[in-house]
Amino acid sequence: MHLHEVETIGRDALADLQVRALRATLERARRSPFYGRRLAESGLGPQDIRSPGDIRRLPVTTKDDLRAEYPFGLVTCPREELIRLHASSGTTGASTVVFHDRQDLDNWSDLVARCMYMVGMRPGDVFQNMTAYGLFTGGLGMHYGAERLGCLTVPAGPGNTQRQIKLIRDFGVTALHIIPSYALHFAGWLEREGIDPGELTPRIALIGAEPHTGEARSRIESLLDLKAYNSYGLSEMNGPGVAFECPEQQGMHLWEDAFLMEVVDPETLEPVPDGEPGELVLTTLQRHAMPILRYRTKDITRILPGDCACGRTHRRIDRITGRSDDMFIIKGVNIYPMQIERVLLGIPEVGQNYLIILDREQDIDQLRVKVEIKAEHYRDDPAAMAALHRHIIHRLRDELLVTPGLDLMPPRSLPEAQGKAQRVEDLRPR
Amino acid sequence: MHLHEVETIGRDALADLQVRALRATLERARRSPFYGRRLAESGLGPQDIRSPGDIRRLPVTTKDDLRAEYPFGLVTCPREELIRLHASSGTTGASTVVFHDRQDLDNWSDLVARCMYMVGMRPGDVFQNMTAYGLFTGGLGMHYGAERLGCLTVPAGPGNTQRQIKLIRDFGVTALHIIPSYALHFAGWLEREGIDPGELTPRIALIGAEPHTGEARSRIESLLDLKAYNSYGLSEMNGPGVAFECPEQQGMHLWEDAFLMEVVDPETLEPVPDGEPGELVLTTLQRHAMPILRYRTKDITRILPGDCACGRTHRRIDRITGRSDDMFIIKGVNIYPMQIERVLLGIPEVGQNYLIILDREQDIDQLRVKVEIKAEHYRDDPAAMAALHRHIIHRLRDELLVTPGLDLMPPRSLPEAQGKAQRVEDLRPR
Repeated sequence: MHLHEVETIGRDALADLQVRALRATLERARRSPFYGRRLAESGLGPQDIRSPGDIRRLPVTTKDDLRAEYPFGLVTCPREELIRLHASSGTTGASTVVFHDRQDLDNWSDLVARCMYMVGMRPGDVFQNMTAYGLFTGGLGMHYGAERLGCLTVPAGPGNTQRQIKLIRDFGVTALHIIPSYALHFAGWLEREGIDPGELTPRIALIGAEPHTGEARSRIESLLDLKAYNSYGLSEMNGPGVAFECPEQQGMHLWEDAFLMEVVDPETLEPVPDGEPGELVLTTLQRHAMPILRYRTKDITRILPGDCACGRTHRRIDRITGRSDDMFIIKGVNIYPMQIERVLLGIPEVGQNYLIILDREQDIDQLRVKVEIKAEHYRDDPAAMAALHRHIIHRLRDELLVTPGLDLMPPRSLPEAQGKAQRVEDLRPR
Repeated sequence: MHLHEVETIGRDALADLQVRALRATLERARRSPFYGRRLAESGLGPQDIRSPGDIRRLPVTTKDDLRAEYPFGLVTCPREELIRLHASSGTTGASTVVFHDRQDLDNWSDLVARCMYMVGMRPGDVFQNMTAYGLFTGGLGMHYGAERLGCLTVPAGPGNTQRQIKLIRDFGVTALHIIPSYALHFAGWLEREGIDPGELTPRIALIGAEPHTGEARSRIESLLDLKAYNSYGLSEMNGPGVAFECPEQQGMHLWEDAFLMEVVDPETLEPVPDGEPGELVLTTLQRHAMPILRYRTKDITRILPGDCACGRTHRRIDRITGRSDDMFIIKGVNIYPMQIERVLLGIPEVGQNYLIILDREQDIDQLRVKVEIKAEHYRDDPAAMAALHRHIIHRLRDELLVTPGLDLMPPRSLPEAQGKAQRVEDLRPR
């Protein structure tokens, strides 16, 4: 495993590669019942793809399509070639599933290993995987990538902070995979136990699986005394290994040899210019068992214009700023929860935990924010607290353009998550 | 993957293979600090091995040795060749760890795949792994074996019975990996929900990770309407894939190309004759990163004399009847918990759950058994209940040679386990 030559390929050669891969993908996709029908209806086939932009002639695929075709409607190969599935874990409501054959798992492992290599992990690194294994793609996905790269993998799984620390110390762990909200919890635990993170060996954290702000990342880096790299993936596109930060930490390179990327207006589905936010739409270029064409991720991001100093030619996306379906509207203004986190975690007096509460009064949606204040700033001094309250309100209003309700909470008064944090409580009647 | 030719190798050829593998293992082992010292002290080297029986010239290795050498004392290779570790999960007390390099993981996966092939699993089978992933070797061990064999693997993980059923139904699952006590819990759940196991697709269950009796297996087979195959492994010898039943279900073939087996008297360490119970002692024959010589497993079993009708030449061990350190002594008689399970689960009126309670009265150890009676047999009829009580007492006395206290309990009154069952409650003062 090394810097893959495809990572610095010229854009023209990349376009050629994408056209060939896209044709092969259409060829495979139409063997599945779903795309066989879809492509026949559209009258389009591999021969119609002459440039990557021709992807726009194809219809999009949505989560509802995956639900309607559950479980086998998108599978292109005989069942006995399948060796892995990852399914949504609920027992109620409509399910989705993604199938992989052996080559798919190989390709997925390679993509994750490339991400890890990019941020400096090498054989000899000790990698502690602190996320859940099983149907969740983050655990097994990172595990296979680290083994492919040749790191010593500690399959710790999530939770049990005391045991995590023991494993880190006993084996000289140098790299972690950790969910951002758990990383903040973990840092708080170290502080309470009086453990200096500088004495611990990890120098790299891979953080992903839930959207988070640059401010959250900065806190994780400073509290844990390491570099934290943002990871983007979703189970429909394998899981981790879709896009990842390089050491420049200026956006995530999306592996364009494996995924064809569009950023579109969620209403019109028209492409937005580079630098403008829109919904990410992805097409698999390598997947065998279950290719997916133009998948609407619902994730809001933007393509970062310009070249990256690292020399990789694959374009970068900005961190996810929200989901087209978790946006809410207050007094006519579109608001994403990430905007609120960005403000709060940029204020030094604010602690690790906050809660966004949506409610309705007299038919009007209301926004209220509860935020923990750090122990050293939470004082029995009404004037100081009122000043802090005003300060935070101003910062939120500047970002959101509306004035939310705000409660300053004592340290450790809000529920702490060991897994993905639930930051939004929606009390509005359905 | 197919019937590996080594599985039907002649005994003489197997002995040659073992001698060569054992010499190579000693050669590697002495590169580790621990065995370097041990072998130097004993003055023994690869050249001293002329037959598999020469293993007895070497000192045994115990769990205490592994604890004393934690973490790296048995490692034979540079750190950067290690790619996996499995460690005991506690945060208190002394820990143990086993390291693997890439070839170790390949060999382990092959051994597990051979077990699965032996009981009839093939590509096209859908394998639901219902045990924990992570540091526990059962989850990842079976997962890698199933992928090696080419089965479609559903990484369900443990618990959440309702979701397990949904996955089984949605994907037409044909083979399960399930802990015996959870299999009994699972069967009870099906019964309460009115689900006919005959309508479910699994035809094979791999059961292991906790000792259980033939009677427990018979119940699992009849309640779930499938064949259940006994699996033996321990993390010091990789995990699953050490010994496994063939379709004859008369003992477990221990893969003698990968492990050198001894069965010894736990007191004298002298070999016991075939057919006699003793402690299993194992030596790795394939492991690179961390070979272990003459490991005292503490597991009590016996070598089953005679040939197996399946044609495999690797000798069979009986199911584990106890651990040399979970044996307890009542009125001078050695008793293993498994003996009690064997009696109880052979009585049709007895339900799925029981509890063995050890206590001390006036300096004498006392044995008390609480056992759930099935709903249709738990009646408001003192004479009938007294007769059943006498019947169970007699059966226990016949097996144990002592008369325990016995409480007949209503159905579902004892705690049910979703993971490994805790069947023994030891209230004796330390």
